[in-house]
Amino acid sequence: MTAPVEPLRPFPTDRLPVDWSWPVFTPGSVWLTGAGPGDPGLLTLHAVNALNQADAVIYDALVDPRILAMAPPGALREYSGKRGGKPSAKQRDITSRMIQLARRNLRVLRLKGGDPFVFGRGAEEALALAGAQIPFRVIPGITAGIGGLAYAGIPVTHRDTNHAVTFVTGHMAGGDIPGGINWTALAQGSPALVLYMALKHLPQIAGHFLGAGRPADEPVAIVSHATLPKQHVHVTTLGDCAAGAFPPGVESPAITVIGEVVRLRSGVDWLGALLEGRQLEADPLGRFVTLATG
Amino acid sequence: MTAPVEPLRPFPTDRLPVDWSWPVFTPGSVWLTGAGPGDPGLLTLHAVNALNQADAVIYDALVDPRILAMAPPGALREYSGKRGGKPSAKQRDITSRMIQLARRNLRVLRLKGGDPFVFGRGAEEALALAGAQIPFRVIPGITAGIGGLAYAGIPVTHRDTNHAVTFVTGHMAGGDIPGGINWTALAQGSPALVLYMALKHLPQIAGHFLGAGRPADEPVAIVSHATLPKQHVHVTTLGDCAAGAFPPGVESPAITVIGEVVRLRSGVDWLGALLEGRQLEADPLGRFVTLATG
Repeated sequence: MTAPVEPLRPFPTDRLPVDWSWPVFTPGSVWLTGAGPGDPGLLTLHAVNALNQADAVIYDALVDPRILAMAPPGALREYSGKRGGKPSAKQRDITSRMIQLARRNLRVLRLKGGDPFVFGRGAEEALALAGAQIPFRVIPGITAGIGGLAYAGIPVTHRDTNHAVTFVTGHMAGGDIPGGINWTALAQGSPALVLYMALKHLPQIAGHFLGAGRPADEPVAIVSHATLPKQHVHVTTLGDCAAGAFPPGVESPAITVIGEVVRLRSGVDWLGALLEGRQLEADPLGRFVTLATG
Repeated sequence: MTAPVEPLRPFPTDRLPVDWSWPVFTPGSVWLTGAGPGDPGLLTLHAVNALNQADAVIYDALVDPRILAMAPPGALREYSGKRGGKPSAKQRDITSRMIQLARRNLRVLRLKGGDPFVFGRGAEEALALAGAQIPFRVIPGITAGIGGLAYAGIPVTHRDTNHAVTFVTGHMAGGDIPGGINWTALAQGSPALVLYMALKHLPQIAGHFLGAGRPADEPVAIVSHATLPKQHVHVTTLGDCAAGAFPPGVESPAITVIGEVVRLRSGVDWLGALLEGRQLEADPLGRFVTLATG
């Protein structure tokens, strides 16, 4: 069977909000902007308005080249990311460079993957700009822990599984597992846990949750390259995560989700249905109960 | 002193991604789409592409009329929200209507405030569509608990305050406080807590957190009408929330955040700086320590 191919078309330009009023990017200011998890279609209209006016774009890893192409052809484009074999820029250097370019009276677009304020150092950059008395604006973006999981067919909340969801970073600036986290309380309080940048430390983190009483057969999904064509979803269990062997395709950047919400994927994986003809279940939680107890 | 007025301009239409390939909205399918927290500028390009092609738009409360205007003039527009004095639609009715319209071979856009999968019943609607064998797509949106708080100058994470943030719903379908939540574990595990639709039960929820050992002077912000011109931010404490008296302007819809991240607002409130000339502090956490101990 050939996989169905989703029909595609050009972007619509009629009925765009051309007559609304949009912020003017003032020279000498910085806009901290979220680019979303990867798919350029998840860019916001505010981000498009920002890109269109930028004199300089300082961009993270994981920002799509098609997004950068929306800036003026003559705009300065500087990579500040920490992936892809290029040398890593230090946070202090990035901040100094933003301030330096703004003081040259440029419109400086700081383009960050996901949302600037979700484990993205956006608050640090904002405070540095405040200290330098550089005017700034914040443009939120879709975060991978919500939008990336949606592309994997996993809703972060569902009435039958959880009334709370916790986002945790699994990786500190220095590369360590974060300290000061009460893993036991998180394990007891949050039916669904979404881990950012946690792949390296996942066996250790899974061990913490098992030690706190979460079951070894609790489902886990690891979504690599979320929202991009090379997106890869690995569904496993907390016990297997603690053992630490992952198959090929499980690689950074990845978002990890622990909890019953993972089971909903067999009913909600719209992308698998569209692109691979996957049949979706109407009652993935009920089905699981039957399998587990029958 | 007159408040500064931010300069505005029309939406840019050059360098739009017209030559990329965008999904075709197939007749007989439903797209579950997030409209973001309110500001139409937080709409994604995928949502614009969806609106442009829709035959029918079933929209929640809190969706801006300017967003609805992006659908074709002849498109059916049906309100399904639960606010604003109009009669409330039941979830089962909304789902049945989506399925009915899709079976009439219409392109059905289900437009939800925020993100469809963050306390938005999106997963329930997806499972109903799976059961009816209606093809569907999910378009994530900016959630108020991240983007709405960013407009209030409050980052949900910051390296110096928290490596985890928990999102909790404060209001169930029936109007009650949700059951089965381990408030003590949440209080001990999450330095920052974001409560959705919690205003009605906030005194009770704040009481749970105080009982679990969170300090009475812990800062809380209640952001009403986040991202809209009528946005109202009330900064208070957990103790005062438990007492339950709120000043005028604190009203639904509101997003509530508990934790040290609220203190960052004095350095990150970019909207207050732009619109009211607010002076921003470079070191809001250090400043607080000095005040509290000096």
